[in-house]
Amino acid sequence: MSRIYLDHNGTTPVARQVADAMWPYLTEYFGNPSSSTPQGKLARRGIDTAREQVAALIGAHPDEITFTSGGTEANNLAIQGTARTARTHIAVSSVVEHPATLQPLTRLAEQGWVVHHLSVDAAGRVNPNNVPEGPVGLGTLILAQNEVGTIQSVSAVAERVHSAGGVMHADGAQAVGKVPVAVDELAVDLLSIAGHKLYAPKGVGALYIRRGTAIAPVLVGAGQERGLRPGTENVASIVGLGAAAELAQGLLESEPARQRGLRELFWRSLSPAIPGLVRISPAEGCLPNTLMVAFPDQIGSNLLDALDGIAASTGSACHSGVHTPAATLLEMGIEPRIALGALRLSIGRATTESDVHTAVAALAETAAR
Amino acid sequence: MSRIYLDHNGTTPVARQVADAMWPYLTEYFGNPSSSTPQGKLARRGIDTAREQVAALIGAHPDEITFTSGGTEANNLAIQGTARTARTHIAVSSVVEHPATLQPLTRLAEQGWVVHHLSVDAAGRVNPNNVPEGPVGLGTLILAQNEVGTIQSVSAVAERVHSAGGVMHADGAQAVGKVPVAVDELAVDLLSIAGHKLYAPKGVGALYIRRGTAIAPVLVGAGQERGLRPGTENVASIVGLGAAAELAQGLLESEPARQRGLRELFWRSLSPAIPGLVRISPAEGCLPNTLMVAFPDQIGSNLLDALDGIAASTGSACHSGVHTPAATLLEMGIEPRIALGALRLSIGRATTESDVHTAVAALAETAAR
Repeated sequence: MSRIYLDHNGTTPVARQVADAMWPYLTEYFGNPSSSTPQGKLARRGIDTAREQVAALIGAHPDEITFTSGGTEANNLAIQGTARTARTHIAVSSVVEHPATLQPLTRLAEQGWVVHHLSVDAAGRVNPNNVPEGPVGLGTLILAQNEVGTIQSVSAVAERVHSAGGVMHADGAQAVGKVPVAVDELAVDLLSIAGHKLYAPKGVGALYIRRGTAIAPVLVGAGQERGLRPGTENVASIVGLGAAAELAQGLLESEPARQRGLRELFWRSLSPAIPGLVRISPAEGCLPNTLMVAFPDQIGSNLLDALDGIAASTGSACHSGVHTPAATLLEMGIEPRIALGALRLSIGRATTESDVHTAVAALAETAAR
Repeated sequence: MSRIYLDHNGTTPVARQVADAMWPYLTEYFGNPSSSTPQGKLARRGIDTAREQVAALIGAHPDEITFTSGGTEANNLAIQGTARTARTHIAVSSVVEHPATLQPLTRLAEQGWVVHHLSVDAAGRVNPNNVPEGPVGLGTLILAQNEVGTIQSVSAVAERVHSAGGVMHADGAQAVGKVPVAVDELAVDLLSIAGHKLYAPKGVGALYIRRGTAIAPVLVGAGQERGLRPGTENVASIVGLGAAAELAQGLLESEPARQRGLRELFWRSLSPAIPGLVRISPAEGCLPNTLMVAFPDQIGSNLLDALDGIAASTGSACHSGVHTPAATLLEMGIEPRIALGALRLSIGRATTESDVHTAVAALAETAAR
């Protein structure tokens, strides 16, 4: 096992408090929340509490939280679900979205929607002024980009989408829990949350749906989650997501600043050691834990394979195994030969200053070979 | 907490071996299976093993198993996913399906499909000869009915659906793990599995997809589960489902016969105590653990509320809270006044002879009040 884990944007460990909160629901509190058995009522109560905890983290009402099987399903519900009710079949998005947004948008295009993918600048950021004139049915933006960490100006895009009559969605998978996120400040109608980016387990997530937003379910069946997400609830993992949300909220005071400090230490230590090292992640308007750098004349994946005891990523985990430069980097105007040398170093709650020094030494040594 | 739990068709407790198998994946083996980190490779291996275990339980190849968030999603993928590729927009189903089948079929009907719901006899069973003449795109049947336990003649219906050019799906949520289920014997192309009916946790399931079956994803995104079910895998729960499948396979030698014995003991003891008690579940061709009975001149839910220390159900958990007779019972030709007095007693692995005697005494005493 890698001694130093720097792939927190790929996935986070489950916080011990989260796993402990889940355990009773994997053992004695096993009831079906739709059932009137005492066991069922206990399960229902666990879900109710989790809904309050998740809502509190993003400044929402509990009844605006719909639990899903993860970020991908949340995005599908947001995009495919909105499309089922929208009258204007025009969507606005960006060229740096995750496949969990791009693919649902492709479905919409197959159904006749026009989809505008806004271009980005060198920092990976869209310009809200580029939202096209005329009516819009749906806007969808990745709040914090998974590979480079760039935080988008969601509220400015939301303002334009709302003026154009549309519903605004943000994919908050990478942002929620890492930086303060408030749905009213963002002015979004829909916000996706992914548990496993937030120290909760894989296989659980949520979609925030602002009261009054028109949306239809994608999966249909019995009436769970007010009919928007049928199927017996994933009780233990939902309880875990709630505990993770509460934990994250408590840490938002200190952890972003601490991680930003470590990230800058990383950059300050690594850049003198690697001549020509390129900083791809922007220094400002970026997730505090994310540093993407490009090693000159290297292939990121080869570098990663040669690195001993350090876990990182060459891009989004969803793309690994594929040796073409990440599309996001090309859209940011980075030359392919630079983009191929990119490594994403993403810090987490357990990362220490000593880890950073060890990782820098290992990277410098490996790159020199 | 109820001392005697007789609602195993509503949900089962997580087997201790299953929870124990999951725990490492909620703690140290936290990697993203799509990632090349050592942590990711361990997670991938856990999923691979689980896929083999689930496949072995139903006589399938591992590559025919697609993990989902549960039975409802498996049914949606089977029905909505087949519909995306089918040329003949005619479906054959029954009048005793779960909402997780009925609602996707309603979606198909909204898209212009013709849906035939075959009627059932007094045992809740369809007659395969009633499959209409002419081409069929999709057949879908509940293998074992959740409320009464009736096992359908899936293979005979499958034969007719295949002759008519269609794809055959069975909802195996209640059957898999309780009785031997083999996909080749059933002659199905698609089979849904729900973890939480099988002593695995809630929020995980699988869809068996026979090699060569044409199907498209419902949720879209990155390439997980061969593109059929994108989203970072629910590793811990998938590992749990695998462990539960292996455990169930080992118990299939003894447990169905033992549970059938307890169920018959239940009926033999209860019926003399309650004059006019109606046995709704058929004695043959029924899940061995399921006994639905109707108490004359009683409301099942009131009876349940008055019962102390015994957890059971008036019908499917998905319908509880609603005081109209279960549609399934009416379709079986049971009079509404009888159907209102129905209780479902569903036995599990922990149920003992002593539990049966205690439950019988409690039911007799409560019904007499």
